Amino acid sequence: MYTVYLAGEIHSNWRESIIRGCEGYDIEFLTPEHDHASSDDIGKNVVGDQENNFYNDHVSAKINSMRSHTYIKHADIVVVKFGEKYKQWNAAFDAGYAAALDKKLIVIHPQEFIHALKEIDGAASAVVESEPQVVDILKHLIR
Amino acid sequence: MYTVYLAGEIHSNWRESIIRGCEGYDIEFLTPEHDHASSDDIGKNVVGDQENNFYNDHVSAKINSMRSHTYIKHADIVVVKFGEKYKQWNAAFDAGYAAALDKKLIVIHPQEFIHALKEIDGAASAVVESEPQVVDILKHLIR
Amino acid sequence: MYTVYLAGEIHSNWRESIIRGCEGYDIEFLTPEHDHASSDDIGKNVVGDQENNFYNDHVSAKINSMRSHTYIKHADIVVVKFGEKYKQWNAAFDAGYAAALDKKLIVIHPQEFIHALKEIDGAASAVVESEPQVVDILKHLIR
Amino acid sequence: MYTVYLAGEIHSNWRESIIRGCEGYDIEFLTPEHDHASSDDIGKNVVGDQENNFYNDHVSAKINSMRSHTYIKHADIVVVKFGEKYKQWNAAFDAGYAAALDKKLIVIHPQEFIHALKEIDGAASAVVESEPQVVDILKHLIR
Amino acid sequence: MYTVYLAGEIHSNWRESIIRGCEGYDIEFLTPEHDHASSDDIGKNVVGDQENNFYNDHVSAKINSMRSHTYIKHADIVVVKFGEKYKQWNAAFDAGYAAALDKKLIVIHPQEFIHALKEIDGAASAVVESEPQVVDILKHLIR
Amino acid sequence: MYTVYLAGEIHSNWRESIIRGCEGYDIEFLTPEHDHASSDDIGKNVVGDQENNFYNDHVSAKINSMRSHTYIKHADIVVVKFGEKYKQWNAAFDAGYAAALDKKLIVIHPQEFIHALKEIDGAASAVVESEPQVVDILKHLIR
Amino acid sequence: MYTVYLAGEIHSNWRESIIRGCEGYDIEFLTPEHDHASSDDIGKNVVGDQENNFYNDHVSAKINSMRSHTYIKHADIVVVKFGEKYKQWNAAFDAGYAAALDKKLIVIHPQEFIHALKEIDGAASAVVESEPQVVDILKHLIR
Amino acid sequence: MYTVYLAGEIHSNWRESIIRGCEGYDIEFLTPEHDHASSDDIGKNVVGDQENNFYNDHVSAKINSMRSHTYIKHADIVVVKFGEKYKQWNAAFDAGYAAALDKKLIVIHPQEFIHALKEIDGAASAVVESEPQVVDILKHLIR
Repeated sequence: MYTVYLAGEIHSNWRESIIRGCEGYDIEFLTPEHDHASSDDIGKNVVGDQENNFYNDHVSAKINSMRSHTYIKHADIVVVKFGEKYKQWNAAFDAGYAAALDKKLIVIHPQEFIHALKEIDGAASAVVESEPQVVDILKHLIR
Repeated sequence: MYTVYLAGEIHSNWRESIIRGCEGYDIEFLTPEHDHASSDDIGKNVVGDQENNFYNDHVSAKINSMRSHTYIKHADIVVVKFGEKYKQWNAAFDAGYAAALDKKLIVIHPQEFIHALKEIDGAASAVVESEPQVVDILKHLIR
Repeated sequence: MYTVYLAGEIHSNWRESIIRGCEGYDIEFLTPEHDHASSDDIGKNVVGDQENNFYNDHVSAKINSMRSHTYIKHADIVVVKFGEKYKQWNAAFDAGYAAALDKKLIVIHPQEFIHALKEIDGAASAVVESEPQVVDILKHLIR
Repeated sequence: MYTVYLAGEIHSNWRESIIRGCEGYDIEFLTPEHDHASSDDIGKNVVGDQENNFYNDHVSAKINSMRSHTYIKHADIVVVKFGEKYKQWNAAFDAGYAAALDKKLIVIHPQEFIHALKEIDGAASAVVESEPQVVDILKHLIR
Repeated sequence: MYTVYLAGEIHSNWRESIIRGCEGYDIEFLTPEHDHASSDDIGKNVVGDQENNFYNDHVSAKINSMRSHTYIKHADIVVVKFGEKYKQWNAAFDAGYAAALDKKLIVIHPQEFIHALKEIDGAASAVVESEPQVVDILKHLIR
Repeated sequence: MYTVYLAGEIHSNWRESIIRGCEGYDIEFLTPEHDHASSDDIGKNVVGDQENNFYNDHVSAKINSMRSHTYIKHADIVVVKFGEKYKQWNAAFDAGYAAALDKKLIVIHPQEFIHALKEIDGAASAVVESEPQVVDILKHLIR
Repeated sequence: MYTVYLAGEIHSNWRESIIRGCEGYDIEFLTPEHDHASSDDIGKNVVGDQENNFYNDHVSAKINSMRSHTYIKHADIVVVKFGEKYKQWNAAFDAGYAAALDKKLIVIHPQEFIHALKEIDGAASAVVESEPQVVDILKHLIR
Repeated sequence: MYTVYLAGEIHSNWRESIIRGCEGYDIEFLTPEHDHASSDDIGKNVVGDQENNFYNDHVSAKINSMRSHTYIKHADIVVVKFGEKYKQWNAAFDAGYAAALDKKLIVIHPQEFIHALKEIDGAASAVVESEPQVVDILKHLIR
């Protein structure tokens, strides 16, 4: 009944706990590539070394965007997790992309990011701190 | 002939150099609130203290989103600047919002952010390091 | 062949008589949460007591909106029932939401509400007083 | 810079205080018909008595919807006021119509309606109790 | 692979020859109500006699529009047949509705209507005189 | 404040009475080509005789559609008049085109067409018999 | 999980190597008619010889556009191959059609076309020289 | 009353004869950059030499696309001219882009391209051989 895209950080396996927590429910989960190295190197692997950091990243990012943009369009609900590490601008970008397409947004982040994430939280339908809360929400929406 | 929204960091006056640089050209510039304190406190000022950091930020962010989302919709081109300081997740969110609405995106950032911003650069029509480059592009587009 | 969302009052079990009346027909029915207490308390249950009536309601309402807005988008036809009790502004809101997305609207209400509901009736493809009439219409549309 | 539609109750002259409060600012205000009798009777006046309450209301409501729906489409921001009297389902309908078209929503209502309006407040960018607060917000958005 | 709506006149069984001609091909056919009496009387049957020709027709037409508009939205291709009898303004209306939604249009009509149907033919992807030609086109499109 | 396209029959000068009746009001009127011969012959005049009735009509119809489709898109309200003569399928086509784009529709026709035009009347916001009624409605909508 | 339309030249069997290379993956492939003669002659075959090169081509092209435009709309990703022969303006047209609908674009072409295809490459998410590279990208996107 | 974008080849000054021919008519003309060298070199000029033909072209093409895509979106009518020289894939791309956005298309090309341009001609509202014919059409549409 719902298609849910799990955007955001790919350095921990947080997606699995949500997918496992919703087993048996009529929810289709979509995810980004989460093998970090493969994600970073797909450009180089397919079109060869561009001999330039910017373009090596550029080619990979554009290939990966075919997945993230398409899956956000397929989704009813987009869950974005902001973790402790890295800039995570792509997570915020995905949140904006989803919001503009009028997808429902659930944001996961620790309390310390309240001020920095206020614009994204303002666009969200729910703001939580942990994966089990997302599971509770999704189960509530579908029973 | 073009409406340009200048999103991104509000800690320096980078917008002015672009607006001034394009004087005499048929471009309408739109900007976010750039009085940081006023932007942060509008919620408290209008609906009173919510006695809770999250909700004080929430009320302000939603009021300010009326401006940023509306102006992105009005724009043909959205310029986003990522500076050295702060998380700037709202800048990345605005970039995603603009990209999903098929607005043209120009991103300004220093070289050190190439890897962290690769997804946003991948969605951009131009990636530059300084404001004069934006002026050159805008003038080129309209002559 | 049709997806039908049954919006409106959740204090009686009127939805069941429509769903049962259409058994065997190729219609998928979607419904809001109809456990009133669960619907009201989901916010408190998931993110904790906000210590403030407005925000407790706010959190629950936004979570529930993920269901109602998504299901209206999935629907071809939205049925809205206005009963005798309560303000039912959410029913009218859902009707407006559906109308703006160009969904077909069937409104159920007693005669006494003719004047108060004239704008919503004006946007409807059918205005009836009872559930069996909705069943007759849906069966007519699909045979 | 903004087009603002003032929807909601037409039994008091609350719109004037907002329009007057924003004088000198680059805001275009749109309003519904606020002569209640003229609004109710336009159908009868133009196409004659339909000899039936439902259809007399129906004809008037559909004519008036040409104004309200068109003006909501023209607007960037829709302000909806819920007063103490009447059912006001058309106000809630307009709020839903605006929300589905991704217009920004400001809701004015007294505290006693917090629970009854939670779904509409949940879709709003600002919830206030009085017209001067709307003026403060609009002035903030445009300076 | 294609969903095809067969709009237009309901006084002959022309639809069957197309549906039968495409048996075994991956095409889903949608049709309007083709029991003329049932179509005309659904309003009276469901909400009772409106004691007025205009409103009896109005109620039926709006109920039937839930089918025709929804099915046009579901369709990739809309086939419209103009026969020798009646005004057939609803067929032309459906053609306009389909064209505005960027659906592909196939028009069937005898040569004598070339001048009267020039605007509709101008919006069509194919103009033919008989059902077997439609079958040939659909089979060509899918092989 | 409104843009109104006057579609439908071009054999009488009914448009002028509406335009004159609304003088001084903030309404922009758009009209189709109403020189019948010029409209029919534009194809032949520009690209030469196609030596075939169908294609001579086809070329003219497609050129004229640039006007009618563009003006319907520009319009808030589309007025369609059905007169006594000719097939007027293009009028019905324009009505369908306008309805699908969610434009507000006012239909003018004599009583004898009630049954034949029921689907188009069902999509209209007002159904009248004469031009002065259209003037009354437009003036009501804008005062 | 993805629907992929394989547009572009129909003089070699390049599509098969991509489809075969992705066997076992959850990708639906859509293709244009690739029997060149049948594609060219469908108009003549269905509506008869138009006794004019332009119109014989015109009728066939419009029939075939029902397939190409519909399949591009169904697709998430459009692959366009530019070969060594012919003008291939229809390949470029399909690329523009896909880009405007915000479909993801993969372009295959030999190095010698870099300058001539720069605008299309600029709209693409990936630019490659051979079919196996497309297979690598599609497999990467779905694992 | 119309906005017209003049796409296509930039090696002759064909645009001027159309603009001059329509002087005094209420038509706004938009054009691409037509200084070929400036168009090719804008990337190198703004972000420096990318030391690679592909990327030098890529950067320029993406900057120029901000103009062409934005102007096509602004336009009601897009005129595309195919001349005798060069591949002109960008002209075909612009035609596809315009068609997908439901812009009206006028194509100018010599007779020899009838077969090669049949798909683009099939999507056009008018196909002509010279600029004065475009002037005749535009004047016809607006009088």
